[in-house]
Amino acid sequence: MASLRGHALIGQSGGPTAVINQSLVGLVERCVEHRDITGVYGALNGIQGIMDERLIDLGREAREELEKVAHTPAAALGSVRRKPTPEAADRILQVFEAHDIRYFFYVGGNDSAETAHLLNEAAIAKGYEVRLFHVPKTIDNDLACCDHTPGYGSAARFVAQAFMGDDQDNRSLGGVKINVVMGRHAGWLTAASRLARRHEDDGPHLIYLPEATFDRDGFCDSVEEMLHRHGRCLVAVSEGIHDAQGNHIAKGSEVDSHGNVQLSGTGALGDYLSNLVKTKVSAASRVRADTFGYLQRSFFGVVSEQDALEAREVGRAAVDVATSGDVTHGSLGIQRGDDGGSYQPVYAVNKLEDVAAATRLVPKEFMNGTNDVTEAFVEWATPIVGTLPQPGRLASHPVTRRL
Amino acid sequence: MASLRGHALIGQSGGPTAVINQSLVGLVERCVEHRDITGVYGALNGIQGIMDERLIDLGREAREELEKVAHTPAAALGSVRRKPTPEAADRILQVFEAHDIRYFFYVGGNDSAETAHLLNEAAIAKGYEVRLFHVPKTIDNDLACCDHTPGYGSAARFVAQAFMGDDQDNRSLGGVKINVVMGRHAGWLTAASRLARRHEDDGPHLIYLPEATFDRDGFCDSVEEMLHRHGRCLVAVSEGIHDAQGNHIAKGSEVDSHGNVQLSGTGALGDYLSNLVKTKVSAASRVRADTFGYLQRSFFGVVSEQDALEAREVGRAAVDVATSGDVTHGSLGIQRGDDGGSYQPVYAVNKLEDVAAATRLVPKEFMNGTNDVTEAFVEWATPIVGTLPQPGRLASHPVTRRL
Repeated sequence: MASLRGHALIGQSGGPTAVINQSLVGLVERCVEHRDITGVYGALNGIQGIMDERLIDLGREAREELEKVAHTPAAALGSVRRKPTPEAADRILQVFEAHDIRYFFYVGGNDSAETAHLLNEAAIAKGYEVRLFHVPKTIDNDLACCDHTPGYGSAARFVAQAFMGDDQDNRSLGGVKINVVMGRHAGWLTAASRLARRHEDDGPHLIYLPEATFDRDGFCDSVEEMLHRHGRCLVAVSEGIHDAQGNHIAKGSEVDSHGNVQLSGTGALGDYLSNLVKTKVSAASRVRADTFGYLQRSFFGVVSEQDALEAREVGRAAVDVATSGDVTHGSLGIQRGDDGGSYQPVYAVNKLEDVAAATRLVPKEFMNGTNDVTEAFVEWATPIVGTLPQPGRLASHPVTRRL
Repeated sequence: MASLRGHALIGQSGGPTAVINQSLVGLVERCVEHRDITGVYGALNGIQGIMDERLIDLGREAREELEKVAHTPAAALGSVRRKPTPEAADRILQVFEAHDIRYFFYVGGNDSAETAHLLNEAAIAKGYEVRLFHVPKTIDNDLACCDHTPGYGSAARFVAQAFMGDDQDNRSLGGVKINVVMGRHAGWLTAASRLARRHEDDGPHLIYLPEATFDRDGFCDSVEEMLHRHGRCLVAVSEGIHDAQGNHIAKGSEVDSHGNVQLSGTGALGDYLSNLVKTKVSAASRVRADTFGYLQRSFFGVVSEQDALEAREVGRAAVDVATSGDVTHGSLGIQRGDDGGSYQPVYAVNKLEDVAAATRLVPKEFMNGTNDVTEAFVEWATPIVGTLPQPGRLASHPVTRRL
């Protein structure tokens, strides 16, 4: 395929992650190096910024500051949740043409892959030549066609460390503690709580993913059983848990233009489950609930080094693929190489339409009944999340009673 | 004063912190060294464990594991929230006598100082010789007679890093974000959110402490003003905020034996404020609330090094004071030495009754009106919290419009 000369444009979209700026910087550093790319721009707030022609010149950023940006959580370009209408796609292509944009990289989740796909179809229909690539990110880890997504490892690490500490807290004061973890449809992030469990009596003692039906009575019975067994109970639940009819256990009221219901940014589910346990489980005296919320995706200072590295690499790989001319559009994804058992990430290109609006759920082999995950999940997740801190535990030699 | 030979007993009490085990290990390592101390025991779950005679021999713990325990959050001995009745105090002294306990160290907040005070009075009345010391800890930083308390620096660091990341998140997607921070009566921890603000437009844009009356209309007006000024608004509120009549803005229903109302472990206040803004502030489209909850005191992996060091030292200092014989009882506290401007912690002994059940509020000079804290607070807090990560920011050179 002939080479294509012109400017590159980068946008960020959807919920931010701790390492989404690593991908941004990976894209920028590769774009400025390539002879076919005549300039590298950023769109503020994703496609909204393109439509408003709010573009910035990323080629003029100082390298030192870019490196700091790479280590800063959330979207440095600003983000957006918006699906382009046909009119919006027309406007975006006009802006592309006006600024000679021949490479477009959109960093986001499956909604962003859908946006990239719609823009690609519009460009083909209009006969405008542009290389269009979706660069993956999502803490939910629910993108199709890949092993995992950048952003997940760091969020999973946050969840694991939070549960490690909260398990010690629950052990100190006893009772039932319920933690609500992000994940609308897929339980990958909630499953990561399992990494906190080392000893047999460590929490979380119960783990509820949206991949299984949530049964209120079964939940209360299991909490009671754990209280009897351990004298306490630490629970991980996904915000997306639902009953047999598919109704969310606690419903939000807001819906975005992709049709997603708001589940985060409210303590409703945690408070609901907490009241349920207080009412139905007689052995439960002290019941508390926390909703981890946005800290999971944007906490400054808890990052998986492997995740940060892969987020950077996937940005660089997108530029390499786009300029190679082998394909004109697609979605980058991380696969797991089979290198004699040792973990090795492999960067591959998938079709935009295969990733767009699809959701990859936690598979059966990672689920252990309706309220736990398997050792196979732990093995899968460990290289992505990295080595966790090591808690100490007193041997607790008893002193002989004298009274 | 004559030296006193006998066993030492250590207990932990109240809400755990990230560094309360540093104090435990500081106590143990000094106790095993001292010739007057014939053995060192731990009480499981504070005074509850003493009454039940559930004691462990801390002198038999391996040093290597103890060092790991020092770095593990929450109370390794287990904690309790219980105020001793006169009968309970009698029982505790019986157990002391049976095990020749002549040194008792109780690690906790002001309720634990009160417990130590009650036990000391009971021991004097009974004529039982024991050296009784309260070792401070609390993330709330609200103990009387000291500059700050072990546990605060690490919790403050967690809050500051959470706000640094969440400010980037709020910048990415806009709207109003409300974060509820722990602190029943005192706003020290909520004030720490201020450390996240570097540039003039950084959040948190509004900070509400329980030391000021919370006015619902004034709050909504301020949120609206910030939305106009910054296009977004990040808010820090203490869980303890109350109206002019002293009523909590969102009330919990549980009360412990010290008379403390449950405010944490529920998302009620965040959801209430979120709905208030949605209803009253017309400019607010996207409104979210997070309640940081127990992660603030027990997250595994975010610690202020200075806080960890001081928590260890205050435990060692307690043993030094107790064995010196200069005083028979008291509460350890950290003062700030005046060493030519550079920060220097000084460990001092205060009276148990002065610390018991007292609360040290954020002083006027640290408060900036009703919704911010001053630069003087930042200067005071910085050496305790330590150096925070440095965020990067794009220079954002605009591209000239062509359409």
